[in-house]
Amino acid sequence: MQEKVLGVLGGVGPLATVYFADLVIKMTDAKTDQEHIPMVILNHASIPDRTAYILDRTKPDPLPVMVSDAKKLERDGCDCIVIPCNTAHYFYDAMQQSVRIPILNILEETVAYAEKTVPNLRCIGILATEGTVASGAYQTVIQKHGLDYRLPTTEDQASLMHIIYDQVKAGEKADICEFLRIVGALKKAGCEAVVLGCTELSVIRKDFSLTQPELVDSMECLARASIRFCGKRLREPAQADTHLE
Amino acid sequence: MQEKVLGVLGGVGPLATVYFADLVIKMTDAKTDQEHIPMVILNHASIPDRTAYILDRTKPDPLPVMVSDAKKLERDGCDCIVIPCNTAHYFYDAMQQSVRIPILNILEETVAYAEKTVPNLRCIGILATEGTVASGAYQTVIQKHGLDYRLPTTEDQASLMHIIYDQVKAGEKADICEFLRIVGALKKAGCEAVVLGCTELSVIRKDFSLTQPELVDSMECLARASIRFCGKRLREPAQADTHLE
Repeated sequence: MQEKVLGVLGGVGPLATVYFADLVIKMTDAKTDQEHIPMVILNHASIPDRTAYILDRTKPDPLPVMVSDAKKLERDGCDCIVIPCNTAHYFYDAMQQSVRIPILNILEETVAYAEKTVPNLRCIGILATEGTVASGAYQTVIQKHGLDYRLPTTEDQASLMHIIYDQVKAGEKADICEFLRIVGALKKAGCEAVVLGCTELSVIRKDFSLTQPELVDSMECLARASIRFCGKRLREPAQADTHLE
Repeated sequence: MQEKVLGVLGGVGPLATVYFADLVIKMTDAKTDQEHIPMVILNHASIPDRTAYILDRTKPDPLPVMVSDAKKLERDGCDCIVIPCNTAHYFYDAMQQSVRIPILNILEETVAYAEKTVPNLRCIGILATEGTVASGAYQTVIQKHGLDYRLPTTEDQASLMHIIYDQVKAGEKADICEFLRIVGALKKAGCEAVVLGCTELSVIRKDFSLTQPELVDSMECLARASIRFCGKRLREPAQADTHLE
Protein backbone atom coordinates (compact mmCIF):
# COMPACT_ATOMS: atom_id res chain seq x y z
CA MET A 1 0.00 0.00 0.00
CA GLN A 2 1.29 3.44 -0.95
CA GLU A 3 1.90 5.55 2.15
CA LYS A 4 -0.19 8.68 2.56
CA VAL A 5 1.69 11.95 2.99
CA LEU A 6 0.31 14.63 5.31
CA GLY A 7 0.73 18.23 4.16
CA VAL A 8 0.84 20.76 6.98
CA LEU A 9 0.19 24.35 5.98
CA GLY A 10 1.69 26.00 9.00
CA GLY A 11 3.35 29.15 10.20
CA VAL A 12 0.04 30.32 11.56
CA GLY A 13 1.63 30.51 14.15
CA PRO A 14 4.98 28.73 13.88
CA LEU A 15 4.97 27.35 17.44
CA ALA A 16 1.45 25.94 17.13
CA THR A 17 2.50 24.26 13.87
CA VAL A 18 5.40 22.48 15.52
CA TYR A 19 3.21 21.47 18.44
CA PHE A 20 0.71 20.05 15.95
CA ALA A 21 3.39 17.91 14.24
CA ASP A 22 4.57 16.77 17.67
CA LEU A 23 1.00 15.76 18.59
CA VAL A 24 0.56 13.75 15.39
CA ILE A 25 3.80 11.86 16.08
CA LYS A 26 3.00 11.24 19.75
CA MET A 27 -0.58 10.15 19.02
CA THR A 28 0.48 7.71 16.25
CA ASP A 29 0.92 4.10 17.30
CA ALA A 30 4.49 3.56 16.02
CA LYS A 31 7.54 1.78 17.39
CA THR A 32 10.13 2.80 14.76
CA ASP A 33 10.86 5.96 12.76
CA GLN A 34 9.64 4.29 9.61
CA GLU A 35 6.13 3.60 10.96
CA HIS A 36 5.34 7.30 11.33
CA ILE A 37 3.29 9.41 8.91
CA PRO A 38 5.43 11.16 6.30
CA MET A 39 4.82 14.91 6.48
CA VAL A 40 5.67 18.01 4.52
CA ILE A 41 5.43 21.02 6.81
CA LEU A 42 5.51 24.57 5.44
CA ASN A 43 6.16 26.79 8.40
CA HIS A 44 5.79 30.02 6.45
CA ALA A 45 5.97 32.38 9.43
CA SER A 46 5.54 35.55 7.38
CA ILE A 47 1.93 34.81 6.34
CA PRO A 48 0.04 38.02 7.21
CA ASP A 49 -2.02 37.90 10.41
CA ARG A 50 -5.46 36.37 9.74
CA THR A 51 -7.42 38.13 12.47
CA ALA A 52 -6.01 41.52 11.43
CA TYR A 53 -7.29 41.02 7.86
CA ILE A 54 -10.71 39.60 8.81
CA LEU A 55 -11.38 42.59 11.05
CA ASP A 56 -9.90 45.18 8.65
CA ARG A 57 -9.81 44.45 4.91
CA THR A 58 -7.27 47.20 4.27
CA LYS A 59 -4.67 45.02 6.06
CA PRO A 60 -2.47 42.55 4.06
CA ASP A 61 -4.48 39.62 2.68
CA PRO A 62 -3.03 36.24 3.81
CA LEU A 63 -4.96 34.24 1.17
CA PRO A 64 -2.50 34.48 -1.78
CA VAL A 65 0.43 33.13 0.28
CA MET A 66 -1.75 30.39 1.76
CA VAL A 67 -3.04 29.31 -1.68
CA SER A 68 0.51 29.27 -3.03
CA ASP A 69 1.60 27.10 -0.06
CA ALA A 70 -1.36 24.73 -0.55
CA LYS A 71 -0.36 24.27 -4.21
CA LYS A 72 3.25 23.66 -3.17
CA LEU A 73 2.09 20.91 -0.77
CA GLU A 74 0.02 19.32 -3.55
CA ARG A 75 2.99 19.47 -5.94
CA ASP A 76 5.24 17.90 -3.27
CA GLY A 77 3.05 14.79 -3.28
CA CYS A 78 0.84 15.31 -0.24
CA ASP A 79 -2.42 13.35 -0.09
CA CYS A 80 -4.25 15.83 2.12
CA ILE A 81 -3.68 19.20 3.73
CA VAL A 82 -4.26 20.33 7.29
CA ILE A 83 -4.04 23.90 8.55
CA PRO A 84 -3.35 23.99 12.31
CA CYS A 85 -4.95 27.43 12.67
CA ASN A 86 -8.65 27.87 13.32
CA THR A 87 -8.73 31.50 12.15
CA ALA A 88 -7.25 30.55 8.77
CA HIS A 89 -10.37 28.43 8.15
CA TYR A 90 -12.16 31.66 7.29
CA PHE A 91 -10.46 31.09 3.90
CA TYR A 92 -11.31 27.35 3.82
CA ASP A 93 -13.59 27.33 0.75
CA ALA A 94 -11.25 29.45 -1.37
CA MET A 95 -8.32 27.24 -0.41
CA GLN A 96 -10.13 23.97 -1.02
CA GLN A 97 -11.06 25.25 -4.49
CA SER A 98 -7.39 25.91 -5.27
CA VAL A 99 -6.24 22.27 -4.87
CA ARG A 100 -7.52 18.82 -5.84
CA ILE A 101 -6.44 17.07 -2.60
CA PRO A 102 -8.78 17.36 0.40
CA ILE A 103 -8.20 19.89 3.18
CA LEU A 104 -9.31 18.46 6.53
CA ASN A 105 -11.49 20.99 8.34
CA ILE A 106 -10.44 21.67 11.95
CA LEU A 107 -13.83 23.20 12.87
CA GLU A 108 -15.87 20.24 11.58
CA GLU A 109 -13.56 17.75 13.30
CA THR A 110 -13.72 19.62 16.60
CA VAL A 111 -17.49 20.00 16.80
CA ALA A 112 -18.01 16.38 15.69
CA TYR A 113 -15.63 15.20 18.41
CA ALA A 114 -17.35 17.29 21.09
CA GLU A 115 -20.69 15.81 20.05
CA LYS A 116 -19.27 12.29 20.24
CA THR A 117 -17.49 12.59 23.59
CA VAL A 118 -19.34 15.06 25.83
CA PRO A 119 -22.48 13.50 27.40
CA ASN A 120 -25.78 15.39 27.01
CA LEU A 121 -24.16 18.13 24.94
CA ARG A 122 -26.47 21.00 24.12
CA CYS A 123 -24.36 24.14 24.31
CA ILE A 124 -20.71 24.76 23.33
CA GLY A 125 -18.58 27.66 24.54
CA ILE A 126 -16.30 29.11 21.87
CA LEU A 127 -12.80 30.29 22.81
CA ALA A 128 -11.11 31.64 19.70
CA THR A 129 -9.50 34.74 18.23
CA GLU A 130 -11.60 37.78 17.43
CA GLY A 131 -11.10 36.91 13.75
CA THR A 132 -12.57 33.43 14.17
CA VAL A 133 -15.46 34.73 16.27
CA ALA A 134 -16.22 37.58 13.83
CA SER A 135 -16.18 35.17 10.87
CA GLY A 136 -18.99 33.16 12.51
CA ALA A 137 -17.37 29.94 11.32
CA TYR A 138 -17.70 27.96 14.58
CA GLN A 139 -21.20 29.32 15.17
CA THR A 140 -22.30 27.97 11.75
CA VAL A 141 -20.82 24.50 12.27
CA ILE A 142 -22.27 24.22 15.80
CA GLN A 143 -25.75 25.20 14.61
CA LYS A 144 -25.48 22.73 11.71
CA HIS A 145 -25.06 20.05 14.39
CA GLY A 146 -28.28 21.24 16.07
CA LEU A 147 -26.40 22.64 19.05
CA ASP A 148 -26.36 26.02 20.79
CA TYR A 149 -23.28 28.17 21.56
CA ARG A 150 -22.04 30.88 23.93
CA LEU A 151 -19.28 33.45 23.41
CA PRO A 152 -17.18 35.15 26.11
CA THR A 153 -18.23 38.68 27.14
CA THR A 154 -16.56 41.52 25.22
CA GLU A 155 -14.19 42.07 28.14
CA ASP A 156 -13.28 38.39 28.42
CA GLN A 157 -12.72 38.20 24.64
CA ALA A 158 -10.25 41.12 24.86
CA SER A 159 -8.48 39.40 27.74
CA LEU A 160 -8.28 36.17 25.73
CA MET A 161 -6.73 38.03 22.78
CA HIS A 162 -4.13 39.46 25.16
CA ILE A 163 -3.27 35.91 26.31
CA ILE A 164 -3.04 34.61 22.71
CA TYR A 165 -1.06 37.48 21.18
CA ASP A 166 0.97 39.08 23.97
CA GLN A 167 1.72 35.89 25.88
CA VAL A 168 1.64 32.63 23.85
CA LYS A 169 2.63 33.99 20.41
CA ALA A 170 5.27 36.18 22.07
CA GLY A 171 6.86 33.14 23.75
CA GLU A 172 5.79 34.24 27.25
CA LYS A 173 4.04 32.16 29.93
CA ALA A 174 0.24 32.41 29.74
CA ASP A 175 -1.81 33.80 32.64
CA ILE A 176 -3.43 30.46 33.49
CA CYS A 177 -5.68 31.84 36.27
CA GLU A 178 -7.23 34.39 33.92
CA PHE A 179 -7.62 31.74 31.21
CA LEU A 180 -9.41 29.32 33.56
CA ARG A 181 -11.62 32.13 34.83
CA ILE A 182 -12.82 32.74 31.25
CA VAL A 183 -13.44 28.99 30.78
CA GLY A 184 -15.36 28.91 34.08
CA ALA A 185 -17.56 31.82 33.05
CA LEU A 186 -18.65 29.93 29.91
CA LYS A 187 -19.44 26.81 31.92
CA LYS A 188 -21.46 28.92 34.35
CA ALA A 189 -23.32 30.36 31.36
CA GLY A 190 -24.56 26.82 30.58
CA CYS A 191 -21.89 25.24 28.33
CA GLU A 192 -21.27 21.51 28.77
CA ALA A 193 -18.20 21.77 26.52
CA VAL A 194 -15.74 24.57 25.76
CA VAL A 195 -13.93 24.44 22.43
CA LEU A 196 -10.29 25.55 22.42
CA GLY A 197 -10.74 26.98 18.93
CA CYS A 198 -7.32 28.56 18.55
CA THR A 199 -4.13 26.55 18.37
CA GLU A 200 -2.36 28.86 20.86
CA LEU A 201 -4.98 27.76 23.40
CA SER A 202 -4.00 24.15 22.69
CA VAL A 203 -0.45 25.13 23.56
CA ILE A 204 -1.73 26.46 26.93
CA ARG A 205 -3.62 23.20 27.55
CA LYS A 206 -0.41 21.27 26.94
CA ASP A 207 1.89 23.59 28.92
CA PHE A 208 -0.37 23.41 32.00
CA SER A 209 -1.41 19.76 31.50
CA LEU A 210 -5.13 20.61 31.54
CA THR A 211 -7.07 17.34 31.24
CA GLN A 212 -10.66 18.43 31.91
CA PRO A 213 -12.83 16.42 29.45
CA GLU A 214 -15.08 19.41 28.78
CA LEU A 215 -12.15 21.24 27.15
CA VAL A 216 -12.33 20.11 23.51
CA ASP A 217 -8.95 20.79 21.94
CA SER A 218 -9.23 21.66 18.23
CA MET A 219 -5.56 20.85 17.60
CA GLU A 220 -5.93 17.37 19.08
CA CYS A 221 -9.08 16.79 17.00
CA LEU A 222 -7.19 17.74 13.83
CA ALA A 223 -4.27 15.46 14.79
CA ARG A 224 -6.71 12.57 15.35
CA ALA A 225 -8.35 13.20 11.95
CA SER A 226 -4.92 13.35 10.26
CA ILE A 227 -3.85 10.00 11.70
CA ARG A 228 -7.14 8.43 10.63
CA PHE A 229 -6.89 9.88 7.09
CA CYS A 230 -3.34 8.57 6.68
CA GLY A 231 -4.45 5.06 7.68
CA LYS A 232 -2.49 4.86 10.94
CA ARG A 233 -3.68 3.82 14.40
CA LEU A 234 -3.93 6.05 17.46
CA ARG A 235 -1.38 5.23 20.17
CA GLU A 236 -3.84 5.28 23.05
CA PRO A 237 -7.31 5.65 21.59
CA ALA A 238 -9.70 7.66 23.75
CA GLN A 239 -12.73 5.63 24.80
CA ALA A 240 -14.89 7.49 22.33
CA ASP A 241 -12.61 6.48 19.46
CA THR A 242 -12.68 2.81 20.44
CA HIS A 243 -16.42 2.62 20.95
CA LEU A 244 -17.74 4.75 18.17
CA GLU A 245 -15.46 4.37 15.18
CA MET B 1 15.89 42.29 2.54
CA GLN B 2 14.61 39.00 1.18
CA GLU B 3 13.89 36.58 4.02
CA LYS B 4 15.97 33.43 4.19
CA VAL B 5 14.09 30.14 4.21
CA LEU B 6 15.40 27.22 6.27
CA GLY B 7 15.00 23.76 4.73
CA VAL B 8 14.81 20.94 7.25
CA LEU B 9 15.50 17.47 5.90
CA GLY B 10 13.88 15.52 8.67
CA GLY B 11 12.19 12.26 9.46
CA VAL B 12 15.45 10.95 10.80
CA GLY B 13 13.77 10.48 13.29
CA PRO B 14 10.44 12.28 13.10
CA LEU B 15 10.31 13.27 16.78
CA ALA B 16 13.83 14.70 16.76
CA THR B 17 12.91 16.74 13.66
CA VAL B 18 9.95 18.33 15.38
CA TYR B 19 12.02 18.99 18.48
CA PHE B 20 14.61 20.68 16.25
CA ALA B 21 11.99 23.00 14.69
CA ASP B 22 10.68 23.78 18.17
CA LEU B 23 14.21 24.67 19.31
CA VAL B 24 14.77 27.02 16.36
CA ILE B 25 11.49 28.82 17.13
CA LYS B 26 12.16 29.03 20.88
CA MET B 27 15.76 30.19 20.40
CA THR B 28 14.80 32.91 17.88
CA ASP B 29 14.31 36.39 19.28
CA ALA B 30 10.78 37.06 17.93
CA LYS B 31 7.70 38.71 19.37
CA THR B 32 5.21 37.98 16.56
CA ASP B 33 4.55 35.05 14.22
CA GLN B 34 5.88 37.05 11.30
CA GLU B 35 9.34 37.59 12.85
CA HIS B 36 10.13 33.87 12.86
CA ILE B 37 12.28 32.04 10.31
CA PRO B 38 10.23 30.58 7.44
CA MET B 39 10.84 26.83 7.23
CA VAL B 40 10.06 23.96 4.92
CA ILE B 41 10.23 20.71 6.88
CA LEU B 42 10.21 17.34 5.13
CA ASN B 43 9.44 14.79 7.80
CA HIS B 44 9.90 11.80 5.55
CA ALA B 45 9.60 9.14 8.24
CA SER B 46 10.11 6.21 5.90
CA ILE B 47 13.75 7.05 5.06
CA PRO B 48 15.61 3.75 5.67
CA ASP B 49 17.54 3.52 8.94
CA ARG B 50 21.01 5.12 8.57
CA THR B 51 22.88 3.06 11.15
CA ALA B 52 21.51 -0.19 9.71
CA TYR B 53 22.91 0.69 6.27
CA ILE B 54 26.29 1.99 7.49
CA LEU B 55 26.87 -1.25 9.42
CA ASP B 56 25.51 -3.55 6.70
CA ARG B 57 25.54 -2.41 3.07
CA THR B 58 23.03 -5.08 2.04
CA LYS B 59 20.36 -3.08 3.96
CA PRO B 60 18.23 -0.42 2.15
CA ASP B 61 20.30 2.64 1.19
CA PRO B 62 18.81 5.87 2.60
CA LEU B 63 20.83 8.15 0.26
CA PRO B 64 18.49 8.24 -2.80
CA VAL B 65 15.48 9.36 -0.70
CA MET B 66 17.59 11.93 1.13
CA VAL B 67 19.01 13.36 -2.11
CA SER B 68 15.51 13.56 -3.57
CA ASP B 69 14.31 15.40 -0.44
CA ALA B 70 17.28 17.79 -0.57
CA LYS B 71 16.41 18.65 -4.19
CA LYS B 72 12.77 19.16 -3.22
CA LEU B 73 13.84 21.63 -0.51
CA GLU B 74 16.01 23.50 -3.01
CA ARG B 75 13.14 23.64 -5.52
CA ASP B 76 10.78 24.89 -2.79
CA GLY B 77 12.96 27.99 -2.38
CA CYS B 78 15.06 27.13 0.67
CA ASP B 79 18.32 29.06 1.14
CA CYS B 80 20.06 26.37 3.14
CA ILE B 81 19.44 22.83 4.37
CA VAL B 82 19.90 21.32 7.81
CA ILE B 83 19.63 17.62 8.66
CA PRO B 84 18.80 17.14 12.36
CA CYS B 85 20.40 13.67 12.41
CA ASN B 86 24.07 13.16 13.14
CA THR B 87 24.20 9.68 11.60
CA ALA B 88 22.84 10.99 8.29
CA HIS B 89 25.95 13.17 8.00
CA TYR B 90 27.81 10.05 6.87
CA PHE B 91 26.22 10.98 3.52
CA TYR B 92 27.08 14.70 3.87
CA ASP B 93 29.47 15.03 0.90
CA ALA B 94 27.19 13.17 -1.52
CA MET B 95 24.23 15.27 -0.43
CA GLN B 96 26.07 18.58 -0.63
CA GLN B 97 27.13 17.68 -4.18
CA SER B 98 23.48 17.12 -5.17
CA VAL B 99 22.31 20.69 -4.40
CA ARG B 100 23.62 24.22 -4.96
CA ILE B 101 22.44 25.62 -1.60
CA PRO B 102 24.65 25.01 1.45
CA ILE B 103 23.97 22.18 3.90
CA LEU B 104 24.97 23.25 7.43
CA ASN B 105 27.07 20.53 9.04
CA ILE B 106 25.89 19.48 12.51
CA LEU B 107 29.25 17.86 13.38
CA GLU B 108 31.32 20.92 12.49
CA GLU B 109 28.96 23.22 14.38
CA THR B 110 29.00 21.01 17.47
CA VAL B 111 32.75 20.59 17.77
CA ALA B 112 33.30 24.32 17.07
CA TYR B 113 30.82 25.21 19.82
CA ALA B 114 32.46 22.83 22.32
CA GLU B 115 35.83 24.40 21.55
CA LYS B 116 34.39 27.88 22.08
CA THR B 117 32.50 27.23 25.32
CA VAL B 118 34.28 24.52 27.34
CA PRO B 119 37.34 25.90 29.17
CA ASN B 120 40.67 24.06 28.70
CA LEU B 121 39.13 21.58 26.30
CA ARG B 122 41.49 18.80 25.25
CA CYS B 123 39.36 15.66 25.02
CA ILE B 124 35.75 15.17 23.85
CA GLY B 125 33.58 12.14 24.66
CA ILE B 126 31.40 11.00 21.77
CA LEU B 127 27.88 9.74 22.45
CA ALA B 128 26.30 8.72 19.16
CA THR B 129 24.75 5.80 17.31
CA GLU B 130 26.88 2.85 16.25
CA GLY B 131 26.51 4.12 12.69
CA THR B 132 27.96 7.54 13.52
CA VAL B 133 30.76 6.01 15.58
CA ALA B 134 31.62 3.44 12.88
CA SER B 135 31.68 6.14 10.19
CA GLY B 136 34.41 7.96 12.13
CA ALA B 137 32.84 11.31 11.24
CA TYR B 138 33.05 12.92 14.70
CA GLN B 139 36.54 11.51 15.26
CA THR B 140 37.75 13.20 12.04
CA VAL B 141 36.25 16.61 12.90
CA ILE B 142 37.57 16.49 16.47
CA GLN B 143 41.09 15.64 15.30
CA LYS B 144 40.91 18.42 12.69
CA HIS B 145 40.41 20.81 15.61
CA GLY B 146 43.56 19.42 17.26
CA LEU B 147 41.58 17.70 20.01
CA ASP B 148 41.49 14.16 21.38
CA TYR B 149 38.40 11.95 21.81
CA ARG B 150 37.07 9.01 23.84
CA LEU B 151 34.33 6.50 22.94
CA PRO B 152 32.15 4.53 25.37
CA THR B 153 33.16 0.91 26.05
CA THR B 154 31.55 -1.70 23.78
CA GLU B 155 29.08 -2.56 26.54
CA ASP B 156 28.17 1.08 27.17
CA GLN B 157 27.74 1.68 23.42
CA ALA B 158 25.28 -1.24 23.24
CA SER B 159 23.39 0.15 26.22
CA LEU B 160 23.26 3.60 24.56
CA MET B 161 21.81 2.06 21.37
CA HIS B 162 19.13 0.40 23.49
CA ILE B 163 18.24 3.80 24.99
CA ILE B 164 18.13 5.49 21.54
CA TYR B 165 16.20 2.80 19.65
CA ASP B 166 14.07 0.91 22.19
CA GLN B 167 13.26 3.88 24.40
CA VAL B 168 13.40 7.34 22.71
CA LYS B 169 12.54 6.36 19.12
CA ALA B 170 9.84 4.01 20.45
CA GLY B 171 8.21 6.86 22.38
CA GLU B 172 9.15 5.38 25.78
CA LYS B 173 10.80 7.15 28.72
CA ALA B 174 14.60 6.93 28.65
CA ASP B 175 16.55 5.21 31.46
CA ILE B 176 18.14 8.44 32.70
CA CYS B 177 20.28 6.77 35.40
CA GLU B 178 21.92 4.49 32.86
CA PHE B 179 22.40 7.42 30.47
CA LEU B 180 24.10 9.56 33.12
CA ARG B 181 26.27 6.63 34.17
CA ILE B 182 27.59 6.40 30.58
CA VAL B 183 28.24 10.17 30.55
CA GLY B 184 30.02 9.89 33.91
CA ALA B 185 32.26 7.09 32.64
CA LEU B 186 33.46 9.31 29.77
CA LYS B 187 34.18 12.20 32.14
CA LYS B 188 36.10 9.84 34.40
CA ALA B 189 38.08 8.72 31.33
CA GLY B 190 39.32 12.31 30.97
CA CYS B 191 36.77 14.12 28.80
CA GLU B 192 36.13 17.81 29.61
CA ALA B 193 33.12 17.80 27.25
CA VAL B 194 30.70 15.10 26.10
CA VAL B 195 29.01 15.60 22.75
CA LEU B 196 25.38 14.50 22.48
CA GLY B 197 25.94 13.48 18.88
CA CYS B 198 22.55 11.92 18.22
CA THR B 199 19.36 13.96 18.13
CA GLU B 200 17.52 11.39 20.28
CA LEU B 201 20.04 12.20 23.04
CA SER B 202 19.08 15.88 22.68
CA VAL B 203 15.50 14.80 23.31
CA ILE B 204 16.66 13.13 26.56
CA ARG B 205 18.53 16.31 27.58
CA LYS B 206 15.32 18.30 27.08
CA ASP B 207 12.97 15.77 28.73
CA PHE B 208 15.11 15.62 31.86
CA SER B 209 16.17 19.30 31.80
CA LEU B 210 19.88 18.45 31.90
CA THR B 211 21.82 21.72 32.03
CA GLN B 212 25.39 20.56 32.71
CA PRO B 213 27.65 22.80 30.57
CA GLU B 214 29.93 19.90 29.65
CA LEU B 215 27.06 18.25 27.71
CA VAL B 216 27.36 19.79 24.23
CA ASP B 217 24.04 19.28 22.47
CA SER B 218 24.47 18.82 18.71
CA MET B 219 20.82 19.70 18.03
CA GLU B 220 21.13 23.00 19.88
CA CYS B 221 24.35 23.79 18.00
CA LEU B 222 22.57 23.19 14.68
CA ALA B 223 19.62 25.37 15.77
CA ARG B 224 22.03 28.16 16.72
CA ALA B 225 23.79 27.90 13.34
CA SER B 226 20.43 27.95 11.52
CA ILE B 227 19.30 31.12 13.27
CA ARG B 228 22.62 32.78 12.50
CA PHE B 229 22.51 31.72 8.81
CA CYS B 230 18.98 33.09 8.43
CA GLY B 231 20.04 36.46 9.83
CA LYS B 232 17.96 36.32 13.02
CA ARG B 233 19.02 36.96 16.61
CA LEU B 234 19.15 34.42 19.42
CA ARG B 235 16.48 34.94 22.10
CA GLU B 236 18.79 34.52 25.08
CA PRO B 237 22.32 34.29 23.80
CA ALA B 238 24.58 32.05 25.85
CA GLN B 239 27.57 33.90 27.25
CA ALA B 240 29.84 32.36 24.67
CA ASP B 241 27.67 33.68 21.82
CA THR B 242 27.70 37.19 23.24
CA HIS B 243 31.43 37.30 23.84
CA LEU B 244 32.81 35.55 20.87
CA GLU B 245 30.57 36.22 17.89
